[in-house]
Amino acid sequence: MSYITIDRANFTHNLNVIKSHLDSIKVAKNIEFGAVLKDNAYGHGLEIMASLCAQNGVKNAFVKNYAEAALIADKFEHISFFYGILPRDFNPKFRNIYPCIQSVENVVQMRSLGDLSGIGVELKVNIGMNRNGAQISEIKPCIKAILESKMRLIGVFSHNGYADDNGDEFMRECVTFDELKAEVTHLANVMGFKLPRFHSLNSAGALRSKRCDDDLVRIGIAMYGYLTNDVSIESSKDLKPILRLYAEKIATKILKKGAKIGYGGSSILQDDSVVSSYDIGYGDGFYRVNERREVRLPNGVQILPKSSMDCFSALSDAETLCVMDNADYIARIYDTIAEEVLTRLSPYIKRMVV
Amino acid sequence: MSYITIDRANFTHNLNVIKSHLDSIKVAKNIEFGAVLKDNAYGHGLEIMASLCAQNGVKNAFVKNYAEAALIADKFEHISFFYGILPRDFNPKFRNIYPCIQSVENVVQMRSLGDLSGIGVELKVNIGMNRNGAQISEIKPCIKAILESKMRLIGVFSHNGYADDNGDEFMRECVTFDELKAEVTHLANVMGFKLPRFHSLNSAGALRSKRCDDDLVRIGIAMYGYLTNDVSIESSKDLKPILRLYAEKIATKILKKGAKIGYGGSSILQDDSVVSSYDIGYGDGFYRVNERREVRLPNGVQILPKSSMDCFSALSDAETLCVMDNADYIARIYDTIAEEVLTRLSPYIKRMVV
Repeated sequence: MSYITIDRANFTHNLNVIKSHLDSIKVAKNIEFGAVLKDNAYGHGLEIMASLCAQNGVKNAFVKNYAEAALIADKFEHISFFYGILPRDFNPKFRNIYPCIQSVENVVQMRSLGDLSGIGVELKVNIGMNRNGAQISEIKPCIKAILESKMRLIGVFSHNGYADDNGDEFMRECVTFDELKAEVTHLANVMGFKLPRFHSLNSAGALRSKRCDDDLVRIGIAMYGYLTNDVSIESSKDLKPILRLYAEKIATKILKKGAKIGYGGSSILQDDSVVSSYDIGYGDGFYRVNERREVRLPNGVQILPKSSMDCFSALSDAETLCVMDNADYIARIYDTIAEEVLTRLSPYIKRMVV
Repeated sequence: MSYITIDRANFTHNLNVIKSHLDSIKVAKNIEFGAVLKDNAYGHGLEIMASLCAQNGVKNAFVKNYAEAALIADKFEHISFFYGILPRDFNPKFRNIYPCIQSVENVVQMRSLGDLSGIGVELKVNIGMNRNGAQISEIKPCIKAILESKMRLIGVFSHNGYADDNGDEFMRECVTFDELKAEVTHLANVMGFKLPRFHSLNSAGALRSKRCDDDLVRIGIAMYGYLTNDVSIESSKDLKPILRLYAEKIATKILKKGAKIGYGGSSILQDDSVVSSYDIGYGDGFYRVNERREVRLPNGVQILPKSSMDCFSALSDAETLCVMDNADYIARIYDTIAEEVLTRLSPYIKRMVV
């Protein structure tokens, strides 16, 4: 059976790369580390990655929705989920799970759940990516609605959409977030609420910043060992991928020169060969290899097109093959980014820490 | 929250298209219908599709592995799983779950599970695709090993790898399978075992055949409403996709001409516009839309690049948008096939029959 390994040493190494950078820059206060574990921890396995983070002293997690948050509620002090509000059957025991509010309407929706007093929330604000989050002009009514419902405003945050790019948009968003913090601080004084935590920097943003006045950084892809973008970020060069995907042999054949392999016989043997099939296919979330793609395993052996839903063939008789140890390689072939290659890996593949 | 609907009427329609074709061709006996439900029923949802099949009188299912088989054991008379042998903790109550044997070695591996008497198996044989399955020369030793372990030989089957292609390879495989059936029939007489069921045709193979002497056809992609290949198959033209993917609105913004949307600001508004974000992204298994892809929703509205892991933006303020009602359209844009587009849809998306 195919499986995924998560490399504990590489993971710890990546955390150290990120922490070393944060230790080296100008900060206003101690910066907390927030682990972004959404989408099954970028395909690495939510619970396995949550445990690894907790073992490494990480106290803050960010996930996609309440279902993901509930699965790891016992592992972190703070778990925020980015999308959706609390479900009707939310567990009131989990006081450390926070929905992210994007509008006054979100608060109104939550009121239908009943008594909200004491529930923590984070407020998401748009600082220029123009995708999600409340507009800056909506901050005050949002906070007012949150406080009127007796909820706790745990954090105010933004997502910086330009951290991967050159140009001045990144700095412009940082300045906007600084203005936003000043505004919220002012409102805290006037309206009398406890100052929430502030965070806006993702992996690229945190690793390229030379100063940071935020309370927390949200680290996703860098923790998993990747950071590919247009910007030269010295501190990201040492990151090491932590995920490896392995396939096991299904069947071996000794075939003659000229034999055809797979759907439509796309691969034709140049010599008498030993060919085996292995149990990873596009149904497992690994990209389909058709006759227009040349995809090689880390050992240099080619995946013979066309690959199938549940298997691929290769000139090998090894019992086990490493199919992928670097998602950037696959991402380049399929004109995408490591994040997509990783998150689409099927959650049904067994994962283990090594 | 995003969701997937499965269209009951279209599903029944597709079954009727397939059955009508089978009724119209020359057959040696009544042909059983086998539903291929592997890989979470090609992404449609294993349990929901198993129920729909059972409601429509389907008695035979084919899945990827034991884990999938166990989930639907109560819904079918016969469930075969293609990959892996029985696990050590298999439930001996499930006498209707059959592993597929590909070699004598598979039987030897199974013997370590203890007493195998009465366990049903299917034997997979390679008829030209040169991927999985025993070689024809290995049939006799495989059957001998199965019988010596007191297991029941339920079926002997092959996978036709050329049903999607023009050329004579398809017919050559059909002839090889006929020879294989004759050989197994001979062995049944000589060795004294009950004749197993025979099956080799998938969707394309079944729908293009003008005669069929098999006991069963295995229908996957056609049941879900697709059949795209190089061959003109008249009976496949009426198939209707049964899956629709929907996203719900996260946030709406009224933005000025020139405003930039998403990572790197790849989309720039040509006019003052209403823009909303919707809760489907590549983390949900829908292909990532970068600035080199033009992807439109069924209503013609464009997915503004770049899409994110958990959302996309569009010039819309609809509460709900249909993101996909035809996987072939997405497959063409990403140089792949509907099967890959469908199977990669996240199992965490809620699915419902409508």
